[in-house]
Amino acid sequence: MTRMDEGMPFLLQYEHVAWYEDGAVTILDRRCYPIETRFVTCRSYTEVADAIRDMVTQSAGPYTAVGMGMALAAYEARNLPDAEKVAFLKKASYELGHSRPTQANRYIQITDRCAKVAQAAIAAGEDPVQAIVADTVDSLNRRYASMQEVGDHLADLIPDGGAVLTQCYGETIIGTLIRAMKKKGKTFRAYCAETRPYMQGARLTASCFADSGIDTTLLTDNMIAYAMSSGLIDVFTSAADTVCCDGTIANKVGSLQIAILAQHYGIPYYVTGKPDQGKETGKDIVVEMRDPSQVLNFMGLKTTVPGVKAIYPAFDVVPPHLISGIVTDRGVFVPEAIKDYFRDGNKNFY
Amino acid sequence: MTRMDEGMPFLLQYEHVAWYEDGAVTILDRRCYPIETRFVTCRSYTEVADAIRDMVTQSAGPYTAVGMGMALAAYEARNLPDAEKVAFLKKASYELGHSRPTQANRYIQITDRCAKVAQAAIAAGEDPVQAIVADTVDSLNRRYASMQEVGDHLADLIPDGGAVLTQCYGETIIGTLIRAMKKKGKTFRAYCAETRPYMQGARLTASCFADSGIDTTLLTDNMIAYAMSSGLIDVFTSAADTVCCDGTIANKVGSLQIAILAQHYGIPYYVTGKPDQGKETGKDIVVEMRDPSQVLNFMGLKTTVPGVKAIYPAFDVVPPHLISGIVTDRGVFVPEAIKDYFRDGNKNFY
Repeated sequence: MTRMDEGMPFLLQYEHVAWYEDGAVTILDRRCYPIETRFVTCRSYTEVADAIRDMVTQSAGPYTAVGMGMALAAYEARNLPDAEKVAFLKKASYELGHSRPTQANRYIQITDRCAKVAQAAIAAGEDPVQAIVADTVDSLNRRYASMQEVGDHLADLIPDGGAVLTQCYGETIIGTLIRAMKKKGKTFRAYCAETRPYMQGARLTASCFADSGIDTTLLTDNMIAYAMSSGLIDVFTSAADTVCCDGTIANKVGSLQIAILAQHYGIPYYVTGKPDQGKETGKDIVVEMRDPSQVLNFMGLKTTVPGVKAIYPAFDVVPPHLISGIVTDRGVFVPEAIKDYFRDGNKNFY
Repeated sequence: MTRMDEGMPFLLQYEHVAWYEDGAVTILDRRCYPIETRFVTCRSYTEVADAIRDMVTQSAGPYTAVGMGMALAAYEARNLPDAEKVAFLKKASYELGHSRPTQANRYIQITDRCAKVAQAAIAAGEDPVQAIVADTVDSLNRRYASMQEVGDHLADLIPDGGAVLTQCYGETIIGTLIRAMKKKGKTFRAYCAETRPYMQGARLTASCFADSGIDTTLLTDNMIAYAMSSGLIDVFTSAADTVCCDGTIANKVGSLQIAILAQHYGIPYYVTGKPDQGKETGKDIVVEMRDPSQVLNFMGLKTTVPGVKAIYPAFDVVPPHLISGIVTDRGVFVPEAIKDYFRDGNKNFY
């Protein structure tokens, strides 16, 4: 089985994202990494859906987790008659595909395909579990290949020795950007916004950069204007959980304000990823509202008195006029013209 | 002894700020409140200076702590000959006055006055310790009276039922604003930015508002643009650690970016306090750089891998064009015209 995660930091290695083996899916618990390196073991696909909902894994992690979850569903259905097997997999596809709303369209692409792969395997008298695992690794490799092209284009936009600000955890693009910069013989410094409440920027992104030997500096989320006004930042970049065809994107809460600050200070903001066909405008984005108690806590430690309320919008919607370019595997697009990405047809990405 | 802290939330009651009694100054440890309600006991003025440096108390707390620290210095010097007593107090005044750089001019006003009060008491054959304690309470009362006028002016600027966003912990203005709004028969809702890394917004400000029965919502520092773009915020207000005579202010890191966002969304930003005579322009502001390890931790819990660096600028410098008005006891000034505050002479405030 070909794997494109060679030389990648710990967090990006396939077994550390989500992995099916012997009737169980293990997922690295990103809620506590690197304070604790712990895996969550799921023994049913519904446990995988719960793990995604609980943010055991996030960013691009669920693309793998829903695939491995479908393999687990096929394992759960192993003793059912073929017709019931197919029905069970369809149900699993729906539930895994809808485990979180903002990226649901992407999850569904994967789970639907897994269901079809399983159905074909069943029809051919082959093992649907292994067929789905192989397809999920294919999908990972496809995304790595594609994100390597994105990373190559992004690397062209970063000045040699420049400082790159990140928000949240851009998963695959982090690893492929590091690879691309090395390949081009360029260095860079990383500034990571810590990204409350889950601290993905501190716990995941900064860890990936530091593990790869990149000069990495952590900023609390309220130090962005300080850093920009002090001339510390050359480029802001983030991934996106949704890229609409009008150039509006959704990404982790906090992205909107950094985009406004970048524009204020004349710093370019590059979004990485590929557009979501079918999501026409920002109005098609569903912003997931998560449990507000997560804002009132830090790793389980309460931060204020009882009686204080909170809100927890998981994502920001960023309008195209705040984005300098959307960096895709097919080059860098002006946000308002991102539709042109599809001129050469859509690609099987997820 | 008159006291103007009646009916104020727990955090604002004089004994909970800093208090001298029987050869010791006790200071509520704001680094862990309200998770833990713990007092730090200082048995020498140098321990008081250390406590201020370590942020056991901050915001307006040190104005009281340096005064009570001077009382403790007078107690420490009780058995020295009068001339040495005075020299000891001068040394204490210098060290307490310079315990943190950004507000040093304010601290020094207080410690210098305490030294003079003590000297006068010694000359009159009175107890310098009690004279300093009485002067410190006078100073607190004076600030309460003055900040009540600021609170009254600020309350006029807040629409009835409106939503007020705060940053960090504005200490006295929080209590006096609550009082002023009640007096005017107006209600408001508070949105508090949690203010990493020390979480003063979550732990102190939100606690004060909620303790006073105000509808209080906590936001992580990266949710400000979300809240503003969603129409949740009517007014942004903060105190200031420095107000220069050109209208530039210094306040907790994060203030600059909220000011930029407020301007982007057409939301007024009102700074409360009085200008610092002698600080002519923003160039006179010294931004304290604190121990970066505090950014790599949350209440002692490490948030990333070893090897990741951090910066910790304690303050932001906000230029006047981002400020809608500076609210003083003498009314609301256009930032660029804040010098006019002194038209009627300076006032003994600190």
